Amino acid sequence: MVKGSGVGRPRASGAAANRPDARQAVLDAAGELFTGAGYAATTTRAIAERAGLRQASLYYHFPAKEDILAALLAETVRPSLALAARLADGPAPAAVRLWALAYADIGLLGGARHNLGALYLLPEVGSPNLARFRTERAELKAAYGRLVAASGVAPAAVGIRTDLVFGLVESIAVIRRDDPELDVEAHVREGADGVVRLVGLGDPSDELRAEAHTLLAALAE
Amino acid sequence: MVKGSGVGRPRASGAAANRPDARQAVLDAAGELFTGAGYAATTTRAIAERAGLRQASLYYHFPAKEDILAALLAETVRPSLALAARLADGPAPAAVRLWALAYADIGLLGGARHNLGALYLLPEVGSPNLARFRTERAELKAAYGRLVAASGVAPAAVGIRTDLVFGLVESIAVIRRDDPELDVEAHVREGADGVVRLVGLGDPSDELRAEAHTLLAALAE
Repeated sequence: MVKGSGVGRPRASGAAANRPDARQAVLDAAGELFTGAGYAATTTRAIAERAGLRQASLYYHFPAKEDILAALLAETVRPSLALAARLADGPAPAAVRLWALAYADIGLLGGARHNLGALYLLPEVGSPNLARFRTERAELKAAYGRLVAASGVAPAAVGIRTDLVFGLVESIAVIRRDDPELDVEAHVREGADGVVRLVGLGDPSDELRAEAHTLLAALAE
Repeated sequence: MVKGSGVGRPRASGAAANRPDARQAVLDAAGELFTGAGYAATTTRAIAERAGLRQASLYYHFPAKEDILAALLAETVRPSLALAARLADGPAPAAVRLWALAYADIGLLGGARHNLGALYLLPEVGSPNLARFRTERAELKAAYGRLVAASGVAPAAVGIRTDLVFGLVESIAVIRRDDPELDVEAHVREGADGVVRLVGLGDPSDELRAEAHTLLAALAE
């Protein structure tokens, strides 16, 4: 793990590429610079400098700037994808599983140190280096789709309804950009409630939320 | 108006800056390049070339690249802002007015020739040249907020609920980027329905939709 104090100012330079936290230091520095100055405006040199590494050390871990972007974006979908797999065929009602997935996913996007979801619209996301991220994001969306279908939405409506649900979940990136002082926990809870209402299941009850929290706690063990 | 055939290939070069459609030709070329190659990767020279103008002519209309971005983004909010003002104090129920605003707004973002909503997350949107766009977008969001409040949402919940509604409306940009062959009309209708459900008003009825369409037609006269 990288210490929080390490980002925001350059580290002592010249650290070895195999320093245990070198890879994470690059990701942390890049996350800050990509979401701040912008992806195109950020050079690998600036990332190495911020991470306190030589550029050669950065290239050892990431041959191209797009590889850093790919690694950062992977972090924004993989935990939710793993959770979706564990939620897929549990005995809990679909509404509970949908609330749980949305809650965890919005929490991941909204609570991460840098607002990486704001990078989803970069043109570089279409490049070959990002193919795996695109696939994993599509798999996550498909997992939402199966929960939407299991919620009793008419088959013909599942596609668009899933587009809207996924759009609402990811919109936390814009909300967070607009208001960096956001009450993340309130937005995560309201966002998960919103997903359930958006699908057409009405207002989630306190029991539904409690069941979803119990499910998440059990799956985290 | 610019002819559709004018974009996608360079025009004959050397046209005068005061050619009646020069300004619009720049916007059209920039919209295509910014949403395709990306904002940072697009030079004013490339825009001028695509628009069939000399660079000096482009600068006559837009002193800086950010001024082009500002003009493009203005187009994505001003029509909806004007509509919101006309909807503000009509006699129709808040749910009808909210459906109508969301329907028109998602239609504007989803149906525009270029997917300009995909530019909302650019870091340049934070720059001084874009202050007016930021203000107008905030005014549009505030108009949604007044309709959300008028829908009977508890005062304490209006803020976050409005964040979610605005996020859902703008998410059409990501949906459209992911699937350029999108059935826009179906998404616009489902998106407006989704906004009403998300606010907590349940499934909109056919009567509500019909009333909203009548209202939109009357306001367009």
